Amino acid sequence: MEKSESTKIDVVETNKERKGKAPLLGTAPVVAAAAVQHAKGGAKRGIAIFDLILRIAAFASALGAAVAMATTEETLPFFTQFFQFEASYDDLPTFTFFVVAMAIVVAYLVLSVPFSIVCIVRPHAVVPRLLLIIFDTVIIALTTGAAGSSAAIVYLAHNGNQDANWLAICQQFGDFCQRVSGAVVAAFVTVVILIFLVVLSASVIRRH
Amino acid sequence: MEKSESTKIDVVETNKERKGKAPLLGTAPVVAAAAVQHAKGGAKRGIAIFDLILRIAAFASALGAAVAMATTEETLPFFTQFFQFEASYDDLPTFTFFVVAMAIVVAYLVLSVPFSIVCIVRPHAVVPRLLLIIFDTVIIALTTGAAGSSAAIVYLAHNGNQDANWLAICQQFGDFCQRVSGAVVAAFVTVVILIFLVVLSASVIRRH
Repeated sequence: MEKSESTKIDVVETNKERKGKAPLLGTAPVVAAAAVQHAKGGAKRGIAIFDLILRIAAFASALGAAVAMATTEETLPFFTQFFQFEASYDDLPTFTFFVVAMAIVVAYLVLSVPFSIVCIVRPHAVVPRLLLIIFDTVIIALTTGAAGSSAAIVYLAHNGNQDANWLAICQQFGDFCQRVSGAVVAAFVTVVILIFLVVLSASVIRRH
Repeated sequence: MEKSESTKIDVVETNKERKGKAPLLGTAPVVAAAAVQHAKGGAKRGIAIFDLILRIAAFASALGAAVAMATTEETLPFFTQFFQFEASYDDLPTFTFFVVAMAIVVAYLVLSVPFSIVCIVRPHAVVPRLLLIIFDTVIIALTTGAAGSSAAIVYLAHNGNQDANWLAICQQFGDFCQRVSGAVVAAFVTVVILIFLVVLSASVIRRH
């Protein structure tokens, strides 16, 4: 679409030159447009650098969440006379899902850094920016799903549920519950950063 | 930024006219550009109509999820000799959150329809499109959080957890579990449609 547009304009310019008109005046708007383009490129580059910094922050919090959850298996029981009461993250399938999902998020954020750098080097490149928006949105859904499901289980571990006859287990496993809660909070922080990244990318892609 | 650009080009054009050049040749690229713009507008309008249809589908599935979950309180216990065994969605705080969150999603989708219609009427309008991307992303997070947390609880209700000594309740409350599972599936369908909407909006805003 854009190719055909530029072709047509080229043809018209050749017509103009054939008629012997000075191309000096014609360059003035081009220079002005280039200056505007340059200023826009600067703003876009600034936002792209901010995007990279936010991406590294999201990576850090996602990694923190995954590691905090995955290392909770070290927690030892308070009551040593009960051998079966040893809390670890893989006792609950939801927490296993959390670790897997956050590992995927961490891997994605590492892989997305080159695209973010491409956006800094070429501020007007649309394709990497668009890819980032699309995959960021999918990763937001994955992260929020993991964080939300784990939050529901953590809530249950803290408070229990009388109607379903599920007892709170945080009285026995205080350390376990604290670490798991921390991991869930870190996952929600990742979600907030990722939402901000999508908003930022969308606002940059607008000024094309 | 865009204002200053158009101002500069206007100044240059006035210079040209002052020197007595015919503006006839100058209109040719404008006409060509307008034709291209028109074709682009058509494609954008088609995508905007598709956006509206998807939005209505998301509204339907979100409404279905909210209603299915909110009306599970009618389910009666199988064993009538136990009076306390009456399953309803507000026995579990996660399901209450689910209903509230899905109600917000339904309300948002209704409110977003006018913006979607504005995008059909004015395919080149950027601001409503950008607003839709930003709020759709936030709503994706909310919907996925509600769906994920309820899925975790539904999984627990179906399978229980031996390590935490939480027993499965779906043997007693089969109908309750089925309806709740259906609501969770509808919520995930809503999430998929919303992700598709964001991808669509991002790809439209690109061709500015």
